[in-house]
Amino acid sequence: SVNPDLASERQTASFSVEKLTALLDGGAEQTRIRRAVVEAIESDPVFSRENQYFQTQNERYEAAVRKAVHLQKKMHEMGWTENGPEYKYIYRALSGDVAFLLHRVFMRSISVLGSDEQIAKWIPLATQHKLIGSYAQTELGHGTYLQGLETTAVFDTATQEFILNTPKISAMKWWPGDMGRSATHTVVFAQLYIHGKCYGIHPFIVQIRSLQDHSLCPGITAGDIGPKMNFEHIDNGYLLLKNVRIPRENMLSKFCEVRPDGTYVRQGSQKINYFTMTTVRISLISDEVLTPLMKACTIAIRYSAVRRQSKLKPGEQEAKILDYQTQQEKLLPQLAAAFAFHFINDYLQELFNRGYREIQRKNFDMLPELHALSSGFKAVITQHCTAGVEICLRACGGHGYSLLSGLPSLYTKILASCIYEGENTILLLQTARFLIKCFMAANTGQPVPPSVTYLAAVKHGKCPAKNKLDFLSPDIYTEAYQHVAVRLTSSTAAKLQDLIESGVKKHDAWNQCTVQLVQAAKAHCHYIAVKNFAETVEKLETKAGIQKIMKHLCDLFALHGIFSNTGAFLHDGYISAAQMDMVTASYLDLLAVIRKDAVPLVDAFDFTDQSLNSALGSYDGQVYQRLYEWAQRSPTNQMSPAYERYLKPLLHNTLSKL
Amino acid sequence: SVNPDLASERQTASFSVEKLTALLDGGAEQTRIRRAVVEAIESDPVFSRENQYFQTQNERYEAAVRKAVHLQKKMHEMGWTENGPEYKYIYRALSGDVAFLLHRVFMRSISVLGSDEQIAKWIPLATQHKLIGSYAQTELGHGTYLQGLETTAVFDTATQEFILNTPKISAMKWWPGDMGRSATHTVVFAQLYIHGKCYGIHPFIVQIRSLQDHSLCPGITAGDIGPKMNFEHIDNGYLLLKNVRIPRENMLSKFCEVRPDGTYVRQGSQKINYFTMTTVRISLISDEVLTPLMKACTIAIRYSAVRRQSKLKPGEQEAKILDYQTQQEKLLPQLAAAFAFHFINDYLQELFNRGYREIQRKNFDMLPELHALSSGFKAVITQHCTAGVEICLRACGGHGYSLLSGLPSLYTKILASCIYEGENTILLLQTARFLIKCFMAANTGQPVPPSVTYLAAVKHGKCPAKNKLDFLSPDIYTEAYQHVAVRLTSSTAAKLQDLIESGVKKHDAWNQCTVQLVQAAKAHCHYIAVKNFAETVEKLETKAGIQKIMKHLCDLFALHGIFSNTGAFLHDGYISAAQMDMVTASYLDLLAVIRKDAVPLVDAFDFTDQSLNSALGSYDGQVYQRLYEWAQRSPTNQMSPAYERYLKPLLHNTLSKL
Repeated sequence: SVNPDLASERQTASFSVEKLTALLDGGAEQTRIRRAVVEAIESDPVFSRENQYFQTQNERYEAAVRKAVHLQKKMHEMGWTENGPEYKYIYRALSGDVAFLLHRVFMRSISVLGSDEQIAKWIPLATQHKLIGSYAQTELGHGTYLQGLETTAVFDTATQEFILNTPKISAMKWWPGDMGRSATHTVVFAQLYIHGKCYGIHPFIVQIRSLQDHSLCPGITAGDIGPKMNFEHIDNGYLLLKNVRIPRENMLSKFCEVRPDGTYVRQGSQKINYFTMTTVRISLISDEVLTPLMKACTIAIRYSAVRRQSKLKPGEQEAKILDYQTQQEKLLPQLAAAFAFHFINDYLQELFNRGYREIQRKNFDMLPELHALSSGFKAVITQHCTAGVEICLRACGGHGYSLLSGLPSLYTKILASCIYEGENTILLLQTARFLIKCFMAANTGQPVPPSVTYLAAVKHGKCPAKNKLDFLSPDIYTEAYQHVAVRLTSSTAAKLQDLIESGVKKHDAWNQCTVQLVQAAKAHCHYIAVKNFAETVEKLETKAGIQKIMKHLCDLFALHGIFSNTGAFLHDGYISAAQMDMVTASYLDLLAVIRKDAVPLVDAFDFTDQSLNSALGSYDGQVYQRLYEWAQRSPTNQMSPAYERYLKPLLHNTLSKL
Repeated sequence: SVNPDLASERQTASFSVEKLTALLDGGAEQTRIRRAVVEAIESDPVFSRENQYFQTQNERYEAAVRKAVHLQKKMHEMGWTENGPEYKYIYRALSGDVAFLLHRVFMRSISVLGSDEQIAKWIPLATQHKLIGSYAQTELGHGTYLQGLETTAVFDTATQEFILNTPKISAMKWWPGDMGRSATHTVVFAQLYIHGKCYGIHPFIVQIRSLQDHSLCPGITAGDIGPKMNFEHIDNGYLLLKNVRIPRENMLSKFCEVRPDGTYVRQGSQKINYFTMTTVRISLISDEVLTPLMKACTIAIRYSAVRRQSKLKPGEQEAKILDYQTQQEKLLPQLAAAFAFHFINDYLQELFNRGYREIQRKNFDMLPELHALSSGFKAVITQHCTAGVEICLRACGGHGYSLLSGLPSLYTKILASCIYEGENTILLLQTARFLIKCFMAANTGQPVPPSVTYLAAVKHGKCPAKNKLDFLSPDIYTEAYQHVAVRLTSSTAAKLQDLIESGVKKHDAWNQCTVQLVQAAKAHCHYIAVKNFAETVEKLETKAGIQKIMKHLCDLFALHGIFSNTGAFLHDGYISAAQMDMVTASYLDLLAVIRKDAVPLVDAFDFTDQSLNSALGSYDGQVYQRLYEWAQRSPTNQMSPAYERYLKPLLHNTLSKL
């Protein structure tokens, strides 16, 4: 039975939940396929996440391996293939709680970096799981700056082998997933040396464990790096190499080859590598970042509709906490952001597909823009969504702090997305470098990529809004965002130039501008996100109910951004103090409007109770029963030796007398 | 051996680290006592935290109980008493990793709320640990709003007993520490009913477990609420009461008594209860909030001095990440905040002591101000420090995400401080209510408490700063903060009044202003923190080296606040755009100045390696060795059944054929 406080929220939806779900999925047929996958996975007890919050790191790892192995069977049984339409829904249906993700990266790196012979040899072995692969790039002392990696691969012409070493402790490979306990092979990135000369970083296939008994191969030291904030199910590992010899054929040689006599040959373009990182950054947004935020919104908003606390009006029943303005101001902007980033993800995917088609035609022109956008949005979205999940967690008070709410795990997992696949500050600085370059080019009349043409048009006008309703006009706020992005880019470019002209060395000048460069990069992405959301809403014209609520959310996303960064808009008077008060008024008004549809909006994300795995967020809103039932299953309700050992002697005063 | 990259940082300290430590401790003698306590605790293997990051929730609980029991012995052995000078350092030395904290709350509530007879009966039993106490206030469905508690205590004149019940699932007691597995007794808060009439919430002593065999008493259902984000060592519990009968004498009756015939008598003042919450909120700041932030700063700053990544100057060695402006901008404001809040803690303590003396003389005049300040600062400091710890964690990249860095545990623990002892938003609204009231009073010429007299003096001037150096003048920035606090309070008061005058009901009007009221309360606290820091620095005049670096930190704290909230200062033009650029310039300049003393500053916090329990933050900076050594001890490096069960059949293709 559904909690009546939640049921009542659903009766007044201003739009069709089912239609919005289909919009988010990209069509009703996609929704059907997704649900079929979810149904198949969730009805299979091997994939259960029921006791996940009670499990140790070891238990989580074992479960993830069990699921990964079972998934092979399941796919065969269901007729799902890696190229089929169901495939992309499997990971989401498993909530990512599965092993061998790095095995896929192992395969992809061979496909991308390997020669035809290497692909022909290794890919079938990997596909049939005759080996388990990993990807060993990061070292204990080296992450972001790949050129600094210290692992070496020295070519020995006598034996036609590479000799691999991690010569110092900081050179030890550290963090690779699936490597701590599972993998038999890995792709090791190492500095290539031939006849004493260094040729830089190259990838090598290295066997690390026996295929017979899984014992470590000669010269290999490997293990698990221990407990982390989350990712208990993954065996992130370490790897030491001591004079490990591998045949010449094991260097992935699509782009570079070492001939038997030690001749080094570079062939083809390496720009594709650059593109691989772009792929990864875009692909993680949906599953690793948006899904957790959408889940957190679902949990926190449903809970806020059933949790009653304090009185809003004297003499009445305690109020739903969702009716407090401060609670709305915490949760609803996160909901709006989830939609904004869902639509920007579509935008990036489309741009990426276009870029990919061009690259296949050997046209690499789109790469810099694609790199700048994927880097910037990876950073902005992971940052924003991580903060959003944390806000949802805190907005649920004490119960949000219980693992049983599901929110702590969502938070500790999404937090990692700010760090992996490029640390966010570094990425924003890459976007900023692109912006500065394009700004300079645009202002000397050179052509620039489409997403930054606006930088050429520095306008010094003022915001034309006359009353608070004007701020519900996408033209008004989009232009304001554009103005700020241009101002921050141009003023930082000017500071950079001033410093250089005053004699500061170029790299020092750059370092002295980085705090502001990061601001400029964020403003650029924020502008594009707002613009894209507004354009998306416009295209929904045939779906009236949905268009209306999406317009509200778009307005909220835009005005929340202004309200939270008033200084950026007030700085040069583009928005005046009086206008800022209108922004605030419109923003606060919107909260009350969207609040009415808050529950139907999160229902449209269409998460099952199993995938939410939350005592607070289930569809029926029976929060307290579930918390109580789940807590009773906790291992902390088994007998503890603490009583006999410590409590009893204390209480009975039989501790050796003080 | 100390990592040379860290050693070099210490050679150039601009001040005496030892003298700063003494300043933070409140004198060199205090430092001596603290170190003696730390030494005694850390040299005792029972108190070791060595394998803490590898332990399950059950193991953590058992260890905490063992430590709590052992502590009794230790105190006797060392001659430490609850009133001695060592006492306050014990908890810090144990890093809070000990059970029976609620036993102390149990005792305090009896001392404060109990009659002399009750104190005489129960306190000796508790002191001698003939029982273990807890404190059962919060319910599954009720936290902040105490009047909403649903547990009932019905007086039965026939038997002279109270009959206690948790009539609905939402009435179940939930969260009390030490209650899930340890406690034999607890103080239960329940609605008192006599002859069918409700007299509101009262406290009752209830035995929940047998003193003989620890079995649950008749009518009691109790257990552990399961896994949480942190606090694995504490057995937060649940408690159901079904017709549990307790004698009339068990209602704590200092202020209210039920006579044998059922007559209800209220005696004395209940304002003291109000004061108890104030005590708790102030007392938690130091140990639960500032210490974690200081530890996080120590870890992140030491690590940033030994971690090298990318090149700042072409051709040079990779740079210390602490030399990047963006890294400085993450970490150094957190360091400045740690000092700002340390000094505000002194200020609150002093105010509290003064208030306590007044209360003993039956003068309750200071209570509203004390309540407003303790509520506001509890919220602002917990919020700011939690964000600060998170920034430190993220600033350490991947290694910060490892539990072995110590940062995840600091974060997941400090986060709870935003929720417990009053949810932060609620607390800020209490401060705001006080501000609005005082603002109204001040503007009609009535007297107001000292901390808010500034609200009377609404000035419409402009900031007089002429160049960036002017913004290093405490008068300039303190006045700017004051201006913003007044503006936000007065504009929100005006909005509130406008709404009411336009016919909106008072409670609705209040709700519609709450987002802005929260902003006003924060601005008020921020102003007082800046002012207090500046005044503290001024008083350090005899300690030249220390005064200089503290002045820099005070400037940084103030300018960081302006830089991060530019809109608040720009809104009415108090600070102009040109002046804001000066703020930014001064702020960024300061980062480079303070960076030089960053390591000596965190050294002055004087944490031992054991208390940091961090592979990244140790005094010697041997980060990589420690990560490797610790990881090897992880239980995830023991044999896993996953190989035999799943990996071997997969690799050997003996899984039942697909």
